Amino acid sequence: MKLYNFFRSSAAFRVRIALNLKGLAYDCVPVHLAKGEQKQPAFAAIAPQGLIPVLELDDGRRLTQSMAIIEYLDETHPQPALLPADAPGRARVRALAQIVACDIHPLDNLRVLKYLSRELKADEDARNGWYRHWVRLGLQAYEAQLASQPGVFSHGDAPTLADCCLAPQIFNARRYECDLSGLPRVMAAFDACMSLSAFQRAQPSACPDAE
Amino acid sequence: MKLYNFFRSSAAFRVRIALNLKGLAYDCVPVHLAKGEQKQPAFAAIAPQGLIPVLELDDGRRLTQSMAIIEYLDETHPQPALLPADAPGRARVRALAQIVACDIHPLDNLRVLKYLSRELKADEDARNGWYRHWVRLGLQAYEAQLASQPGVFSHGDAPTLADCCLAPQIFNARRYECDLSGLPRVMAAFDACMSLSAFQRAQPSACPDAE
Repeated sequence: MKLYNFFRSSAAFRVRIALNLKGLAYDCVPVHLAKGEQKQPAFAAIAPQGLIPVLELDDGRRLTQSMAIIEYLDETHPQPALLPADAPGRARVRALAQIVACDIHPLDNLRVLKYLSRELKADEDARNGWYRHWVRLGLQAYEAQLASQPGVFSHGDAPTLADCCLAPQIFNARRYECDLSGLPRVMAAFDACMSLSAFQRAQPSACPDAE
Repeated sequence: MKLYNFFRSSAAFRVRIALNLKGLAYDCVPVHLAKGEQKQPAFAAIAPQGLIPVLELDDGRRLTQSMAIIEYLDETHPQPALLPADAPGRARVRALAQIVACDIHPLDNLRVLKYLSRELKADEDARNGWYRHWVRLGLQAYEAQLASQPGVFSHGDAPTLADCCLAPQIFNARRYECDLSGLPRVMAAFDACMSLSAFQRAQPSACPDAE
């Protein structure tokens, strides 16, 4: 498998974690988002949407959208499971993942920050305020969900799809100096994640294209 | 079941479609987002995140996040299926749904438009430009995906999770007068959806709380 990757993309980071948790080897193909390589013809031919990550399977088929990719990996390589066996548990894990993947990250990714700057003339302070606002709101919601059930990770005592999404978001939050106070369960889940080699080896600084 | 609903919420619209496709009856509990009812203590006790939809099951359990809710409904009421049986098909349908639910809608929902207006002082033209930009980019990506395979709906000849997400997005796009030209497969899928009673009965104007 080939992962079209940018070391700093948190959506790609989610997939790197899932691949590592499943013990699946992959080749990393760097696409430098900050330099706009996703808009070059070479990558546009591969992924017309110009978004990272894309997972190319050995049969040439290409999968897009990080959560869809991780569910595919979970269905085709069931162990260790990244979703619980029970429907309510699965709904909870997916909802947690979607707090990050639908309510936080889409607002804070690079193309949006660029739009704020170029089209809406938002200065650095305004962009940082925007970034921190959505991270804070989303992580508080995540914390409230975690507080309702015990467990070391986001759901129980093993990492799930939710943790694949949470950990990269905490990296981003720290990079933008977001307020991470008052989030004891979120930060405990993050620490539990980062104690695992699968998460450590997936982090931006461990990528071949890291700067 | 009870659906905490706002007639104009496209995320709630997705769940209404799925409930109708599954033939599941539900009570509609209106939460008026434009009047800020989601921030009132009554709803905050139900959903700390203050987001619509919330599906309350008969056992009192509450599910959040529209895609997670629809997958739960599909797992617990398998017929008619809203996801294909094969893993690559499931990945494709989820990726399509996520183009809407991760790449378009989070940028264009009410709380974001309010932030643009209040915090970034974006005027109506700037907000409309923002809205249309993300809709157009996302729908073009959706179109490119559809063009790669035959089918009347987003995936094959029956509605799936992807169509549950697409149809509400087209309603929103029309409301904001977005450019929908050059999207033949997308609009054909939308028309196929709206030929079905399950979609018709879920549309905003058919909601008990419609204005």
